[in-house]
Amino acid sequence: MTNDEQAIREVIETWMAASRRGDVATVLGLMTEDVVFMVPGQPPFGKEAFAAVSEGMKDLHIDGRSEILELEVLGDWAYLRTHLNITVTRPGGPPVHRSGFTLTILRKEADGRWRLARDANLLASDS
Amino acid sequence: MTNDEQAIREVIETWMAASRRGDVATVLGLMTEDVVFMVPGQPPFGKEAFAAVSEGMKDLHIDGRSEILELEVLGDWAYLRTHLNITVTRPGGPPVHRSGFTLTILRKEADGRWRLARDANLLASDS
Repeated sequence: MTNDEQAIREVIETWMAASRRGDVATVLGLMTEDVVFMVPGQPPFGKEAFAAVSEGMKDLHIDGRSEILELEVLGDWAYLRTHLNITVTRPGGPPVHRSGFTLTILRKEADGRWRLARDANLLASDS
Repeated sequence: MTNDEQAIREVIETWMAASRRGDVATVLGLMTEDVVFMVPGQPPFGKEAFAAVSEGMKDLHIDGRSEILELEVLGDWAYLRTHLNITVTRPGGPPVHRSGFTLTILRKEADGRWRLARDANLLASDS
């Protein structure tokens, strides 16, 4: 595994661990300023909207696990595909499971760090 | 606009025009052998499954329009984001509209042609 592949895997692990403990600041630091998130049924959104949604979900417990299915490094860019499993629990409520696939583009920025730049998240509620 | 950008735009235009006239062979020629398609609510699928689904939709009339929102060329790779509008009409049936966003990764292959390599399609039925 190259250093870049290792660094990208650490970005994903750090992202998931920070999400589990509700550490929004760390998650925001793992995305580019011009990041674009895409989910089914709504227009693409950026970093500011991601932060606002995360702020509104502070009381939820989110336990996510990400399995990397494919990772290709293309110079200062990379893409990866994952299968995600997420369990969201509201205080006093039942856990809600969601799972599905993602396609993500990452960029190595001037400081040498890899960050998420474009992310298509095709998760659906488990039926 | 660079030659690569122009070539990629032509791939998308050719794809949409071929889809409109039910020319599956042309569409299949615009994707890599290892292409991966991702849509909400089902596992990723490849070229063979795409061909089988297209064969099963032969009687449908598909009118799609694609607007390119972003196109970045990264050497022999590129990614693009589009907003898609699609109308599917069954013989004797009412037209069904779907719209949404896509994130696509393209690869310039050894023959110098750009082809779709990874595609996340977040279309939903219009409510």
